[in-house]
Amino acid sequence: MNTRIEKCVELIKAHDLAGVALNPGQSLIYLSGLHFHLMERPIVLIITREGETAVILPELEKGKLTGDAAEFQAFTYGDDPASWHTAFEQASAALKLETGRVGVEPEHLRFLELHYLNSAFRGVDFINGSEVLGALRLNKDADEIARMRQAVIIAQEALLATLWTLHTGITEKAAANELIVQLLRAGSDPDLPFEPIVAFGENSANPHAVPTHRALKPGDLILVDWGASFEGYLSDITRTFTFGEVDGELLRIGEIVRQANQAGREAGAPGLAAGVVDRAAREVIEAAGYGPAFFHRTGHGLGMEPHEAPYIYAENDLTLTPGMTFTVEPGIYLPGKGGVRIEDDVVVTGDGLQSLTDLPREVLAVESFIR
Amino acid sequence: MNTRIEKCVELIKAHDLAGVALNPGQSLIYLSGLHFHLMERPIVLIITREGETAVILPELEKGKLTGDAAEFQAFTYGDDPASWHTAFEQASAALKLETGRVGVEPEHLRFLELHYLNSAFRGVDFINGSEVLGALRLNKDADEIARMRQAVIIAQEALLATLWTLHTGITEKAAANELIVQLLRAGSDPDLPFEPIVAFGENSANPHAVPTHRALKPGDLILVDWGASFEGYLSDITRTFTFGEVDGELLRIGEIVRQANQAGREAGAPGLAAGVVDRAAREVIEAAGYGPAFFHRTGHGLGMEPHEAPYIYAENDLTLTPGMTFTVEPGIYLPGKGGVRIEDDVVVTGDGLQSLTDLPREVLAVESFIR
Repeated sequence: MNTRIEKCVELIKAHDLAGVALNPGQSLIYLSGLHFHLMERPIVLIITREGETAVILPELEKGKLTGDAAEFQAFTYGDDPASWHTAFEQASAALKLETGRVGVEPEHLRFLELHYLNSAFRGVDFINGSEVLGALRLNKDADEIARMRQAVIIAQEALLATLWTLHTGITEKAAANELIVQLLRAGSDPDLPFEPIVAFGENSANPHAVPTHRALKPGDLILVDWGASFEGYLSDITRTFTFGEVDGELLRIGEIVRQANQAGREAGAPGLAAGVVDRAAREVIEAAGYGPAFFHRTGHGLGMEPHEAPYIYAENDLTLTPGMTFTVEPGIYLPGKGGVRIEDDVVVTGDGLQSLTDLPREVLAVESFIR
Repeated sequence: MNTRIEKCVELIKAHDLAGVALNPGQSLIYLSGLHFHLMERPIVLIITREGETAVILPELEKGKLTGDAAEFQAFTYGDDPASWHTAFEQASAALKLETGRVGVEPEHLRFLELHYLNSAFRGVDFINGSEVLGALRLNKDADEIARMRQAVIIAQEALLATLWTLHTGITEKAAANELIVQLLRAGSDPDLPFEPIVAFGENSANPHAVPTHRALKPGDLILVDWGASFEGYLSDITRTFTFGEVDGELLRIGEIVRQANQAGREAGAPGLAAGVVDRAAREVIEAAGYGPAFFHRTGHGLGMEPHEAPYIYAENDLTLTPGMTFTVEPGIYLPGKGGVRIEDDVVVTGDGLQSLTDLPREVLAVESFIR
C-alpha cells in the first residue's frame, strides 16, 4: 500500500467512516496514479477502513492497472451496460462492506456511480466525504509545490510571448488562441486548467468573461486570466495591462487592486483563519470606496484542480497551515468601463504566504513588453 | 419559451415525469444557451411539466441570464456555502414541486447538486432521466450537422498540417502538441473534444494510449485519434499511417480494418438496430481470424459530447433514425507489434449512413503527405 493510501485509511478511521469511493478525477490520480476519462462507463475505486482496495472498471481499461494499482482487486465489465451491475455486485461481495458510511467527493461523484454503488452496497450510506478527501490533498509537499512553481514559470513565459503579438484590431479570441499556443510551446501539458480569459475594454468588467470577437483598440484595459498545467499541477494567474491612453479612474483602480492584492498576501499566515486573507484585501477596496465593485471572494485553493479547498471568503474559519496553496485575486469591476484583477498563487509557509508568481503586479502599458 | 424547451416539456409529459433538473453541461447549453464551468458551486436548471423554469446559481453568474434565459426564475446565493441551501429552498417554494419523479442526467449530475435538490425538494424522487434528456439531443438538425461537418473539416486540415512535420526522432508528445496547435490554427474552439492520441509502433496496440516520450522510428505504425470543436459540436477521427517499411502483417490488418470500417458504414440504415453496424464491422474482422484483437465496441454517438448516445455495440437494439450521428471505428490490436484503427463520423440519412469524414481510409505511408 502506498503512503498516500495509508494516509487516506488513517483519515477514514479518524472520521469514523467505513471507507471512501472515488470516481475518475484528481483524487484518484493522487491516490493511485490512475488516469481515466470521465465517461459514460462507471469507474470506481473503493478503499475500506481495513485498507482493502477494489476497483470496478471496463475490461478495456484493465491494462492501466500497473504499479501500485496492480495490487487492487479488479472487477471488470464489457460493452453491454446490462453487465455493469454484476461487476459492482462482485466488488461488494469481495469487500464485505455491508454497513456504515462511505465518503464520496460531492463535486465529482455522479448520479451514475452513486446508482451502481447504492444497488450493490445496499446497507451502506454514501455521504459527503469532503472532510477525508479534501484533507488528503489540502497540504502540498515539496514535490507538489515544485510542480506548481513550474506551472507558474510556464504560464508566465507564455504570457510574455503573447503580449508582444497584441496590436490594434486583434480580437480577444485570437489573442486567447495565441496564448494557448504559447502555453503548449512553453511546456504546458495539453489539459490546461481552464480556457484563458482575454478581455478588452468594457469586457474586462466581467470577472467570468469569455473571449469574443471584440477587437483591441487604444484606451482599452487588457485583462488576462490564464494558467498552465505541469505534471498534474496547475497555475492560475491574472494580470491587467493598458493599451494606449486609458481613463484615469482605470489607472486608479489598478493601483487600489494592487494594494489589495498585497494586503491579502501579507495578512495570511499559519494559524490564522483563511477568511483573514479575504478581509484584508477587501478592506483596502472598501476604504477606497469601491466595496460594491469587488463582488467575489478573494481566492480559491489551487493544486491538481483549478478550484479546490481552501476557499478564501470572509466567513471561512478554516485554519491556514503550511503547504496550503491558493489564489489571492481581488478585483474592481466598473460596468461599461473596465475592470482590474490581479491574481497570484501563494503557498502557506512557516511564517506567512509566499507567492509562486512574480510577474510585475502594477497595471503596466502592454507597449512596454513589445520587443 | 424556446422550441427546444417546448420539446423537452413534451418529452417530460410523454415519460410521465414531474420535470427535469440539469447541471452545467451540454444539455444545459442546448436548452438555454447557458455556459457555466462545472465547479464547486451548485448550478441547477429545473424545468417542470407545466413548462415552468427556475435556475439556482451564484449571484456572480446572474449576468449570464440573457436571451431566452432571462425569462427563467432565478434564485441566487453568495460566497458563503451556508447560504446555498436557502436558494434551493426558494426555488422549491416557487415551483411548488412537491411530489413525482424528476429526471436527471446520470453522467452529469453530481452528488453535490443531488444533495441540495434532495434537501429542498423533499417529496420528489430524482431518477435517471436519460430517456428524456438523451432523446432530446439524439437526432441532430441540419444546423447541428453543419457544425459537425465544420469540426471535421478543421480536424482534417489540422492533421494534414501536422503530418509533414513528422520525422525520425519526434516524440508522440511533441507530435500531439503540434496537432493541438494546428487544430487551433485551423479554427477549432479551444475546448478540444479530447486530447489527441498519437501512438507510434507498439504503442498503437493500446486503444487508449496517452502520448509519451517514445520517438518515431522507421518501421512504426503511426496511429492518430483526434478531433476538433466548432461552435459546440465535435469531430472524432482516427487514421493510421506507416513510417518507413513496416511488417507485412501490419499492412494486412490495415486492409482488414479498412474493410470492416466500410462494412459497418454500409450496414447502418434508418429502421435498423444500432447493433447491426457493430456486427457488420466485427464479422469482417472475425472472418479474417482477428476477432479477439478487436475488443471494443464499434463506435459511440458524437455531437456536443465526445461520447453520447447512440452507442454502437452488438446488443444495442435502439432503432437508427435520420439525424443520429456516431462514430464507426473498428480496430485490430497486436500487443508488442502495433494496432490499426480507422474511425469515421457518420450521420443517419433517409437511406443509409453518410460519412462526414473523407480523408483516405487506407493505411498510407506518411511520407506521401510530406510536402
